[in-house]
Amino acid sequence: MTIVEIINKKKNKKELTKKEIYYFVNGYCDGSIKDYQASSLLMAIRLNGMSEKETFNLTKAIINSGKMFDLSNIDGIKVDKHSTGGVGDKTSLVLVPLLASLGFKVAKMSGRGLGHTGGTIDKLDSITGFKTEVSEEDFVKQVNDVGCSIIAQSSEIALADKKLYALRDVTGTVDSLPLIASSIMSKKIALGSDVICLDVKVGNGAFFKTKKEALTASKLMIKIGKACGVKVRAIITSMDEPLGYNIGNKLEVQESIDTLLGKGPKDLENICIEICKIFIKETGLYPKETDLDSLIKGKIESGEAYQKLVDMVNAQHGSLPIKLDENLTVTEIRSNKEGYITKINTLDLGNMLVELGGGRKYKEQEINYDVGFAIHKKMNEYIKENDLLFTVYSTSPLSEKEIKEFQTSINVSNKPNLNYKEIYKIL
Amino acid sequence: MTIVEIINKKKNKKELTKKEIYYFVNGYCDGSIKDYQASSLLMAIRLNGMSEKETFNLTKAIINSGKMFDLSNIDGIKVDKHSTGGVGDKTSLVLVPLLASLGFKVAKMSGRGLGHTGGTIDKLDSITGFKTEVSEEDFVKQVNDVGCSIIAQSSEIALADKKLYALRDVTGTVDSLPLIASSIMSKKIALGSDVICLDVKVGNGAFFKTKKEALTASKLMIKIGKACGVKVRAIITSMDEPLGYNIGNKLEVQESIDTLLGKGPKDLENICIEICKIFIKETGLYPKETDLDSLIKGKIESGEAYQKLVDMVNAQHGSLPIKLDENLTVTEIRSNKEGYITKINTLDLGNMLVELGGGRKYKEQEINYDVGFAIHKKMNEYIKENDLLFTVYSTSPLSEKEIKEFQTSINVSNKPNLNYKEIYKIL
Repeated sequence: MTIVEIINKKKNKKELTKKEIYYFVNGYCDGSIKDYQASSLLMAIRLNGMSEKETFNLTKAIINSGKMFDLSNIDGIKVDKHSTGGVGDKTSLVLVPLLASLGFKVAKMSGRGLGHTGGTIDKLDSITGFKTEVSEEDFVKQVNDVGCSIIAQSSEIALADKKLYALRDVTGTVDSLPLIASSIMSKKIALGSDVICLDVKVGNGAFFKTKKEALTASKLMIKIGKACGVKVRAIITSMDEPLGYNIGNKLEVQESIDTLLGKGPKDLENICIEICKIFIKETGLYPKETDLDSLIKGKIESGEAYQKLVDMVNAQHGSLPIKLDENLTVTEIRSNKEGYITKINTLDLGNMLVELGGGRKYKEQEINYDVGFAIHKKMNEYIKENDLLFTVYSTSPLSEKEIKEFQTSINVSNKPNLNYKEIYKIL
Repeated sequence: MTIVEIINKKKNKKELTKKEIYYFVNGYCDGSIKDYQASSLLMAIRLNGMSEKETFNLTKAIINSGKMFDLSNIDGIKVDKHSTGGVGDKTSLVLVPLLASLGFKVAKMSGRGLGHTGGTIDKLDSITGFKTEVSEEDFVKQVNDVGCSIIAQSSEIALADKKLYALRDVTGTVDSLPLIASSIMSKKIALGSDVICLDVKVGNGAFFKTKKEALTASKLMIKIGKACGVKVRAIITSMDEPLGYNIGNKLEVQESIDTLLGKGPKDLENICIEICKIFIKETGLYPKETDLDSLIKGKIESGEAYQKLVDMVNAQHGSLPIKLDENLTVTEIRSNKEGYITKINTLDLGNMLVELGGGRKYKEQEINYDVGFAIHKKMNEYIKENDLLFTVYSTSPLSEKEIKEFQTSINVSNKPNLNYKEIYKIL
């Protein structure tokens, strides 16, 4: 078996065997297969696809290339969640403490932001003193004690994925469904939770632009979970507008705190409640007759959910409250049109945070945790001229061009978009 | 412009601009574009193809990446020929002196053999003392004085091609028509001849397996020539049997000498005569009413063609005659079947020379110039049991398995294959 034979097989649209896929993944990890051979195969996979069987084997080979985390010392039902990435997506910051308050155990690893989508680890890093690099021992101990922990993705997990992802990023091979699905699932499965819920974002600010793509990806990832013996559920949610109102690291932590205190945006709260319900139904943690809405909202109203966030922050050496830099320039941006908001260019808004310095253009870039903006109007709201649309927090005054870009990110129409939903489907 | 944008364009089946193609070729040569990015793009080209315009620009960019040879100091009409590779293909050794005896100037660069196909430079290296590494000045001087010279491909010509070919070889991207065509044509055009004739081989021992593929490739290469301002003609010839009878470096030089002396195999002589006619018709070197067959055969009968070979060999420090190592084991292999020969597995025969040590499995391999074999029966000949099929010259006695392999390379039928032709088409 040689890598050129494997490349030729995929090039000629033949199915790769388990042995061939492991040969590739292991050879790429140990350096016997070169970057230029891996990228040629990745492009052939991007263009000729992979069968489900091939995708399962690729996921298993990637899991196998790194360390499997041992969560067996954690008592209770371990649940995990993954978002495919969005703008203003602070779901994990609300959901993880909320799940812990319900009695689940959440040992979560997250990533940093790149490009227009944010990353949970950046948001946590914006909390003074918060440590996202934690030893396995301390991680397990905290999940047992507090019920939850969110730390930075360990480089030991799914070793091949790190190397493959870096290569895909510079060779035009990111947008391949089997490669995306195996990359996501290998990291999640290697961590060893009992149930995984995927928050698959769809819309102009998401990786998946159409509901069909999001549905196909969700189904594939659920099947990968099954093939690997892990229960996987998926919720397909909109990224045709930011989630909640705040975009920017500290601003999003603040909005998460507000939500855990029952004062947050409804769309964010709803998604978190729905994901909690999925986990409860899947695991049977509460009796069937339980009124789940009351149960979950009760954890917010009682302050238990917020307390779990505080406990997690304390356990990871962070300190609240969130304080925004007082020297930032605050700019109010107002509407220059009237009508129902039927399109919000969420991708542009994500990129605007990057331009403000709150996101990364390249991996090593330092970011400013304080900058960001709030959007005050959302999909299908009726706006008039001069209505306040955005409040922007920046390190220097905005240019006319930037103000215009904020304004043009919102499109209006004389009728609302009745097809719009925040949650499209639960699988 | 970034290489990832270029890769994405080709991945999404969009046409690359001239600027993008030059950016890729130049960037790959200067190292700013990495091997793993080039191989990803090459695979996208292999799978999504290239338009004619893209292929012309790729060829020009490759030519531009290296040195253009200056043949302007050579008086007369400069012609060049390229074979896509075959087994027993010693055409250049006969054709080049023959063209010189007709008054053409032939400044030819050739390659070494790899895999089952031989290379002209290996054959010339089998002549005692013959130098294939010659300075540009001596090369030009010899072509002016003698009329012809064949030297090893200069690494300065079509610089990008050398780098791209090495990468294609290890990334499964060799078999792409635009890449093949631009690779061949860039090297030929950069050498600066007035007319180029392509000998496009088709059959089981050739790169192109079907006439359709060979025709498509020929037409594309002719168009590339036109786009670059060079006259290109093509002859599509069979590689469903070896050319002539001898396979092996010294054996092929001997058969070329025999052919130049009028005692060679008819198929080889015919191809050489046809290519001479193509050049004469294309350039008008002789009056239209000339009986070209008599003219060309006359150069053989008079000994002028052979004398040109002798002059070329002397000018390049070689010495004739060819002497085969007397210690070789000589094995006669006889037929075990009866019928018309309707298939000769020419690919297998080419690989058998490699097994004997007369060809290369990898680029740096040393080869034995003396080993080889003669085939005594050709397509559509009627053979009986015990007829002599092969005489093999090897360094050690052949195994039963090897003898069997020689025998099974020849298939018989009760009717001849009337579709078989040595020359399919002249374009």
